[in-house]
Amino acid sequence: MKFNSTSFLPFIVIMILTISQVSIYAQAQENKQLVRLAKLEIDPDQLENYKAFLKEEIETSVRAEPGVLTLYAVAEKDNPTHITILEIYANKEAYEAHLLTPHFIKYKNGTLDMVKSLELVETIPLIPGMKIK
Amino acid sequence: MKFNSTSFLPFIVIMILTISQVSIYAQAQENKQLVRLAKLEIDPDQLENYKAFLKEEIETSVRAEPGVLTLYAVAEKDNPTHITILEIYANKEAYEAHLLTPHFIKYKNGTLDMVKSLELVETIPLIPGMKIK
Repeated sequence: MKFNSTSFLPFIVIMILTISQVSIYAQAQENKQLVRLAKLEIDPDQLENYKAFLKEEIETSVRAEPGVLTLYAVAEKDNPTHITILEIYANKEAYEAHLLTPHFIKYKNGTLDMVKSLELVETIPLIPGMKIK
Repeated sequence: MKFNSTSFLPFIVIMILTISQVSIYAQAQENKQLVRLAKLEIDPDQLENYKAFLKEEIETSVRAEPGVLTLYAVAEKDNPTHITILEIYANKEAYEAHLLTPHFIKYKNGTLDMVKSLELVETIPLIPGMKIK
């Protein structure tokens, strides 16, 4: 059997095409992501209780739902009752499925009277697919 | 050579101690993280130019600086000139070093007249070490 550089050419072309297809696919998936900011104000008397509910809901969602990419929640140092959550879902379907999970419903119903205000801000990420190292 | 269950005991104890030490160390590192929200309003006439500056600055920082864990920037869908950045630094030193990098200085000086307002909100993460899948 004889090998020369041209005999590898079809394989190289197929490899390059495959890699570029994978990259285009990954980018298309990233562009489907649903990214938003949830801005909440919590009743100060119930803040610790609220945070326990939220922590459990986030940990369960991120562990159990492949389409919940992150729920990164922060409290403002100077206004600890002001909570912001960066929510990233793989796509619209993942978000809609999340709303029907028992852990989300438990959180939502359990915290109804603790949340003084909730603003959901739809956003567009500057760099889709950005991670946390 | 004879093995019995007690002969393994010291190794098991050392293993458990090592694992718990690593876990305590990792948690201590996470608790040192500097997490904040940068809220900006950009001059609408210079928005595309601003976003190009910010994108370059973020990509360079995350690639070149191990202590910049993420700079996750989003624009509000209904108010595209309103930008929020979730900034996570490994610690105070990493943040201070970031301010002195040529790419940050280029971004800062290059966008001075594009930024109508900037608010830096120090925060405490609900779940330190949370990632994006």
